[in-house]
Amino acid sequence: MARILLTGGSGFVGRQVAAALQAQGHDLVLVLRPGSRLRIAEIAAKARVVETADLFAESPTWWQQACQDVEVVVHAAWHVVPGQFYSSPINFDCVSGSLALARGAVAAGVRHFVGIGTCMEYRLPSEHLDVTAPLEPSTVYSAAKLGLFHMLQQYFAATGTAFSWCRLFHLYGEHEHPGRLVPYLRAQLKAGETARLSAGTQVRDFLDVAEAGRMIAEVVDSRQQGAINICSGQPVTIRQMAERIADEYGRRDLLEFGTAPPHPADPQAIVGVPNLQI
Amino acid sequence: MARILLTGGSGFVGRQVAAALQAQGHDLVLVLRPGSRLRIAEIAAKARVVETADLFAESPTWWQQACQDVEVVVHAAWHVVPGQFYSSPINFDCVSGSLALARGAVAAGVRHFVGIGTCMEYRLPSEHLDVTAPLEPSTVYSAAKLGLFHMLQQYFAATGTAFSWCRLFHLYGEHEHPGRLVPYLRAQLKAGETARLSAGTQVRDFLDVAEAGRMIAEVVDSRQQGAINICSGQPVTIRQMAERIADEYGRRDLLEFGTAPPHPADPQAIVGVPNLQI
Repeated sequence: MARILLTGGSGFVGRQVAAALQAQGHDLVLVLRPGSRLRIAEIAAKARVVETADLFAESPTWWQQACQDVEVVVHAAWHVVPGQFYSSPINFDCVSGSLALARGAVAAGVRHFVGIGTCMEYRLPSEHLDVTAPLEPSTVYSAAKLGLFHMLQQYFAATGTAFSWCRLFHLYGEHEHPGRLVPYLRAQLKAGETARLSAGTQVRDFLDVAEAGRMIAEVVDSRQQGAINICSGQPVTIRQMAERIADEYGRRDLLEFGTAPPHPADPQAIVGVPNLQI
Repeated sequence: MARILLTGGSGFVGRQVAAALQAQGHDLVLVLRPGSRLRIAEIAAKARVVETADLFAESPTWWQQACQDVEVVVHAAWHVVPGQFYSSPINFDCVSGSLALARGAVAAGVRHFVGIGTCMEYRLPSEHLDVTAPLEPSTVYSAAKLGLFHMLQQYFAATGTAFSWCRLFHLYGEHEHPGRLVPYLRAQLKAGETARLSAGTQVRDFLDVAEAGRMIAEVVDSRQQGAINICSGQPVTIRQMAERIADEYGRRDLLEFGTAPPHPADPQAIVGVPNLQI
């Protein structure tokens, strides 16, 4: 069992990673904003908590201190403001802060660093994104993630640190932001109100965030290196996904396809090829 | 004629860019370390100089101020310590500082940003590197440059700022570091001493740094956007290059090929396809 420092442990993905790591018996150091521990009280009660108002503003020296006696870092934190983060320069703060974390981790002797990337690093659209597919970001967010990937990969290679980069596909599930597709549908269906949707022909790779958390925890244990797609590998249209959920309520009649405009930067297909070795 | 802010204007490449821009009648704002103006006294005498001990440590607000009334930024500065910079995390400081410059430039209303990249961003080796060739850095330095390219490209697209990225190939010439190939050869040949070289079979794309400076200044005037190879397009082996120089001294006999080990990270071929529109 390892001592693992986790950032973003109170977030949508990070809390699932934290739960999965604790279930495997690992000892966690959570880096959290003051107050965030209340959102994950059960997890935090079994962990050491280091507080900071903005982890992306901390120095390599601060991180070196936080990483004392830590064997593995899982860096799940990122500034994500739904609807705005795709083009915001706040992504640059995340890159600079993540580089400071990497330097501190190396200085403290961390042996394995697990970062979190995105399917949006790939050239899209594609229904067959294996980890050797061409990389071509089309937003500030995905350029920041890809840029960080390139830098960390070379830096950790030069310092002899194991490095894994988990590219997340379309996650849904517990604690999801209410503005996103699945929570929106459930809220409308539950209330018996119509749900306005685009045509729904876009093909996606949906994965339950709890399963994603278990897969990332698996990477910690297996120490599989390089880019890893955290995906289902199953192509599903947004229409199919919506209909599955509507069927739980017996209310397909509430789905109004084609009444909402598609997002302008919404690729037709994003489907991964799983490469996690189990 | 435009007002142009130039970083790195006292460096190997930057001073050539400065001279070429002034020759075209542009009005320069040079961001320099205290003392550096002495190295380019003639250029600095005709420019406005803003001093800072470390431009990569300045904030977006500082840059916004420096960019007042500036139309174009040419960002030629980078921390380059010969022999060390390929794997140093100092490259990360350069990335963070360059992102702060970009944000300040956008806030000040700069309309065109010219950044400096490297042929090492491409997957190597290759004798046919056009700007659509696969990108695959293999050092911390080239990963930092490529990461910055991706981020700036998306950020400037989102903010409506013209963006050019000049990828430098193998530059030689005036004010080159004495440890590099051409100055080393000239020093040995001049002194009548043998020059120890690798087998010299590696194929390179050599370009005089003064010509590179003129090409970058051309990008300012034409406002050609995207990635631009600053290269000759001519494949030349290191042996051919060495022999050309030795011939100037009539001393090919002083060249000892195969007596120095090749650099372990030295690709067999790096040759660009020029795409500068003139």
